[in-house]
Amino acid sequence: MAGSTAPIIFILEPFGGSIRRHNAALPSLFWDDAGVTRGDGVFETFLVRQGRACNAQRHAERFAASAQRMGLPAPDVNYWLKATEEAVSAWVEERGEEAEGTCVWTYTHGRASTGFPSAWLTITEIKPEQLRQRREGVSVLTLPRGFTPTEESAQWMLTGAKTLNYAAAMAALRHARAQGCDDVIFTQGTGEDARVLEGATSTVVLVKKNGKIRTPLSGGEVLRGTTQEALFDAAQAAGWRCKAKDLTVADLYEAGSVWLVSSVRIAARVTHLNGKKLPAPDNEQEVRALIESAVTSA
Amino acid sequence: MAGSTAPIIFILEPFGGSIRRHNAALPSLFWDDAGVTRGDGVFETFLVRQGRACNAQRHAERFAASAQRMGLPAPDVNYWLKATEEAVSAWVEERGEEAEGTCVWTYTHGRASTGFPSAWLTITEIKPEQLRQRREGVSVLTLPRGFTPTEESAQWMLTGAKTLNYAAAMAALRHARAQGCDDVIFTQGTGEDARVLEGATSTVVLVKKNGKIRTPLSGGEVLRGTTQEALFDAAQAAGWRCKAKDLTVADLYEAGSVWLVSSVRIAARVTHLNGKKLPAPDNEQEVRALIESAVTSA
Repeated sequence: MAGSTAPIIFILEPFGGSIRRHNAALPSLFWDDAGVTRGDGVFETFLVRQGRACNAQRHAERFAASAQRMGLPAPDVNYWLKATEEAVSAWVEERGEEAEGTCVWTYTHGRASTGFPSAWLTITEIKPEQLRQRREGVSVLTLPRGFTPTEESAQWMLTGAKTLNYAAAMAALRHARAQGCDDVIFTQGTGEDARVLEGATSTVVLVKKNGKIRTPLSGGEVLRGTTQEALFDAAQAAGWRCKAKDLTVADLYEAGSVWLVSSVRIAARVTHLNGKKLPAPDNEQEVRALIESAVTSA
Repeated sequence: MAGSTAPIIFILEPFGGSIRRHNAALPSLFWDDAGVTRGDGVFETFLVRQGRACNAQRHAERFAASAQRMGLPAPDVNYWLKATEEAVSAWVEERGEEAEGTCVWTYTHGRASTGFPSAWLTITEIKPEQLRQRREGVSVLTLPRGFTPTEESAQWMLTGAKTLNYAAAMAALRHARAQGCDDVIFTQGTGEDARVLEGATSTVVLVKKNGKIRTPLSGGEVLRGTTQEALFDAAQAAGWRCKAKDLTVADLYEAGSVWLVSSVRIAARVTHLNGKKLPAPDNEQEVRALIESAVTSA
């Protein structure tokens, strides 16, 4: 059915087994799924480009790590990757090789009434807004996250797990949009000395005027970034000096350029920070090409 | 169909309109519902007892307040209450007047592909574990929540909203169960001086030996408790002196009795705290009856 515009939904079996294409016009989830009632599940988002899911190994690793933190049975990532290949093949068959897409893996504690985890993946069109932001950049508001993690809770907390609990991130985005901004960068503290954490759904990367690339240290409140990791590997190989270290809001204003990197939007340059214009650097196209190539070759 | 054991599912229209009974054997939710993908929704849980949803007005008020904090269109709570009456009638018809149940309202930002909020309610059987804990009490572990809220973020944060983001609470419960406990009380800080916050899905209430009843102040990290509020109203009227104030873990050890109160489990006495036995007070039956009557008459 070439020319179809329906999303692609595959239902997986949590412990491996058959993969079933689900009719996109029908619902697939029950009201008692822990992913719905408690946000008790994990996910990963991949870019589909030129007939493949990009940066798949890093996503798969983080998926397994998230599942472990959440007390889910260890997923067989090779099974998930194989299902992804099938779904991407269907996508290409129906949309053509050039069609980009968003692939999402979701894995939850499942229905209260069965106790089996739920597992599925989807491929959908990339939102026009994301494509626009990829081209034109984003206007960003810094927002203190409002919670400061303490050391005491490492034994049970979900730091490092990419859970379905994004309500706070969505609320922050709504708050930013109400002020005419596209996105947020969370900070610890306020003002120019505040520590930079991460975007609402992205990793902060800063390209300095001296050719160094920086990103905040991950761990605690900062999720490790699969796109940032692919970028650092590729950039190091290309002679850039890359390092994760604590950054302040002042560092953002002084950088050559600031980027929000993530799987599907890839790299959105921060064009405005708290209403102040951040001029385009001379090497904007070079940096963009570096990030794009890092992701699509990973 | 008297004797049915199927849960009752009603699909609501987000802006009012017809109420539709959904076949419990079929899924109802789509993979792109913001409630599923982001936990971007709110909920309330009611006890169904003797043919009515208990404490409905307080739940309805908190539901509306949560929706507002989450940027959802204001729900018509009378429409929700009317749908609940219909669902409870069906429950009684199928199970009998004496059958207790759990009624949950859920309201999310809805499908990405339509932009309409999703709205539904369910009535299901109370989990045997909850009934057991109501009868026998709970063994509790205190756990530092690990995040300390700051003042800066009141403008956008979701404090006070009962969102679907319970992954951290579920992780804390898994951690407690792995150590042989039934439940947790979150604290700020560690040790006996730590400030008492709330249970994973309940409010902490402490009955002192001198006839006073205490609960931690709500706001910030502590969600207002509908059951605790009903209790305080009824207890004040019965001559108890009730007050919300900061409490420490030491206060729990010194209390006459400690209770976790919530809609469906109603009141579970804390029988063990961090492995230490808390002896049953002389007035255990009196306190339990007070809480039960407060909830079921509200």
